[in-house]
Amino acid sequence: MRKFDINEDPHRRYNPLINEWVLVSPHRSKRPWQGQNEVLPSDSLPEYDPTCYLCPGNVRVNGELNPAYEKSFVFENDFAALKQEEIAFEDSKEETFFKAQPERGISRVVCFSPKHNLTLPQMEVASIEDVIATWQREYTDLGKIDYINHVQIFENKGSVMGCSNPHPHGQIWAQSSLPTEVEKTQNNLKAYFDKHKSNLLLDYLQQELKLKERIVIENEHFVALVPFWAIWPYETMIIAKRHLEKITDFSQDEVTAFATILKELTIRYDNLFETSFPYSSGIHQAPTDGIAHPEWQFHMHFYPPLLRSATVKKFMVGYEMMGESQRDITPEKSAEILRSQSGIHYKDQK
Amino acid sequence: MRKFDINEDPHRRYNPLINEWVLVSPHRSKRPWQGQNEVLPSDSLPEYDPTCYLCPGNVRVNGELNPAYEKSFVFENDFAALKQEEIAFEDSKEETFFKAQPERGISRVVCFSPKHNLTLPQMEVASIEDVIATWQREYTDLGKIDYINHVQIFENKGSVMGCSNPHPHGQIWAQSSLPTEVEKTQNNLKAYFDKHKSNLLLDYLQQELKLKERIVIENEHFVALVPFWAIWPYETMIIAKRHLEKITDFSQDEVTAFATILKELTIRYDNLFETSFPYSSGIHQAPTDGIAHPEWQFHMHFYPPLLRSATVKKFMVGYEMMGESQRDITPEKSAEILRSQSGIHYKDQK
Ligand SMILES: O=P(O)(O)O[C@H]1O[C@H](CO)[C@@H](O)[C@H](O)[C@H]1O
Ligand SMILES: O=P(O)(O)O[C@H]1O[C@H](CO)[C@@H](O)[C@H](O)[C@H]1O
Repeated sequence: MRKFDINEDPHRRYNPLINEWVLVSPHRSKRPWQGQNEVLPSDSLPEYDPTCYLCPGNVRVNGELNPAYEKSFVFENDFAALKQEEIAFEDSKEETFFKAQPERGISRVVCFSPKHNLTLPQMEVASIEDVIATWQREYTDLGKIDYINHVQIFENKGSVMGCSNPHPHGQIWAQSSLPTEVEKTQNNLKAYFDKHKSNLLLDYLQQELKLKERIVIENEHFVALVPFWAIWPYETMIIAKRHLEKITDFSQDEVTAFATILKELTIRYDNLFETSFPYSSGIHQAPTDGIAHPEWQFHMHFYPPLLRSATVKKFMVGYEMMGESQRDITPEKSAEILRSQSGIHYKDQK
Repeated sequence: MRKFDINEDPHRRYNPLINEWVLVSPHRSKRPWQGQNEVLPSDSLPEYDPTCYLCPGNVRVNGELNPAYEKSFVFENDFAALKQEEIAFEDSKEETFFKAQPERGISRVVCFSPKHNLTLPQMEVASIEDVIATWQREYTDLGKIDYINHVQIFENKGSVMGCSNPHPHGQIWAQSSLPTEVEKTQNNLKAYFDKHKSNLLLDYLQQELKLKERIVIENEHFVALVPFWAIWPYETMIIAKRHLEKITDFSQDEVTAFATILKELTIRYDNLFETSFPYSSGIHQAPTDGIAHPEWQFHMHFYPPLLRSATVKKFMVGYEMMGESQRDITPEKSAEILRSQSGIHYKDQK
């Protein structure tokens, strides 16, 4: 009988953050693709677009005027999924199949730059530092509100990720409850911390830094790697090297290092298929529930959908929805491919 | 303070099958959409396509010839994510962050009809009965193989769901392990069964049949409803009324009733936006691990991506990936809309 070869044989890998498995089929990337192609993002956007509701000085759907902002700019989402109003609710406590509870929260939009045609990989490190400062301020201000226990910072980039406006921006959804994925993660981080009296992600990072197989880039304070249990073809995670529970724990050096690694990682993403690389990214960190969270370690997930080219994505559909996530190339291969990309943006190479 | 109104106020609902929550924002469907539009499926396909690798008599990529099949037809997936080969593997049992195990399995493709231009809503009930008979046979035959403990039957329909060929077909991935979603479901069904000595889904169904709010259609043996905790805008679930652990437990009457409800549900789906409605569907039932499974109840999930029209889907992206699934209309509203669709396919109405 042949011995298991993780680079060749179908196998499952375990994700200790959410206690779930992923099916890895290394050989499967060879199959031909006759399915749907995505539309390429426009390559020539103006610096200012008079029809864009995020550009400085423009009017939004609700009639409000954007200021002539020069760095980042935050406003309340005009079509928020959450509302601030307090709603009277009594939980009957009896066991029923119709368990529901009102959810209070605040949704904001964060414009990263006044320039319509920039994205993180093309922004100056100093401008990205300003975005990080904005995230810190929002985490603090929203977290201070008594009923806000969790602040989710995220970005949807590219039309294939449901983003309807190329103007560089992300969102923040702050709410009373811990969202499902965050709660799962916290439970697993907590169980590990209670058992080992140490931090799961920091221990994991030590192992990865020794092996070097899945590291994409690294600087003094942060590491970007393809997690051993990644589900998306080019999924990555940025982890802080020092124990930092949340973005407000960063030193000024760490802010600069984080801005730098954000820029360098997204440059490699753009270079991979020479396109403005779509993804959803999001920060996972300690909740703002007023409790100590030594089990948490600041990290940022990048979930990019592309698999084969700028127009062919991985579809997480039938088997993945009913069974479990499935990937076609190994995380080690993806890390190697990303690592080998130039650190200079392809548009600046020409 | 205003009292909680589940039809208007943002809230979370609990899914007892997988122990996860979904964020419901009823008011949010009003926001305008400027994002990506999907490509409409072709409305005029030939009954036979000489370039289709699934049509009878055609040659597949690997050189094999499809027989001149007249009903359904099953073959081994030419680019399987799973392989049958047994691989030698020793689990070290020590705790590590790099937990992986080889996975053995078989992937098959099930053509539903020799006709290239048919889909379930347009097929005769008798032909759908034949598809069900095929699923029964496959569940039995694959389940009999000693290392196969789970048989996942599913369909990806439409290019937006990663389906590269409109020829009506589904897939079967059979494997040694319980996939993540199935294991989660089984754990919750089992915990309920152990506690209440009764079946979670049958108890839930009784409640839904009393309330009638989320029922889409119903016949003597099956019910199609929008689950209270549905995440996709028009998600539904078909549940058997009698305790049936698996598809091979069906009586002949139940086969006919299941074929009928499959046709009637998908007709309503097609009628909703007058398009060949895309979805991923899949059957959840007892594993083939040789153990008794009174906690299981046969059911089939439909996860359709469309939200507003034939070309605008719901994007499960940033917040949904980092936080939790979010929906913009209530399940009750969706059920009402689906229920009010005609039972005659829109193409037959003209
Ligand atoms: O096997 P197919 O139809 O080529 O592939 C499709 O379904 C599979 C099972 O859900 C997915 O893994 C693929 O991403 C999807 O494109
Ligand atoms: O808020 P946006 O950018 O309009 O909407 C986008 O991101 C949201 C948060 O991930 C999703 O709920 C929407 O489905 C998506 O289209």
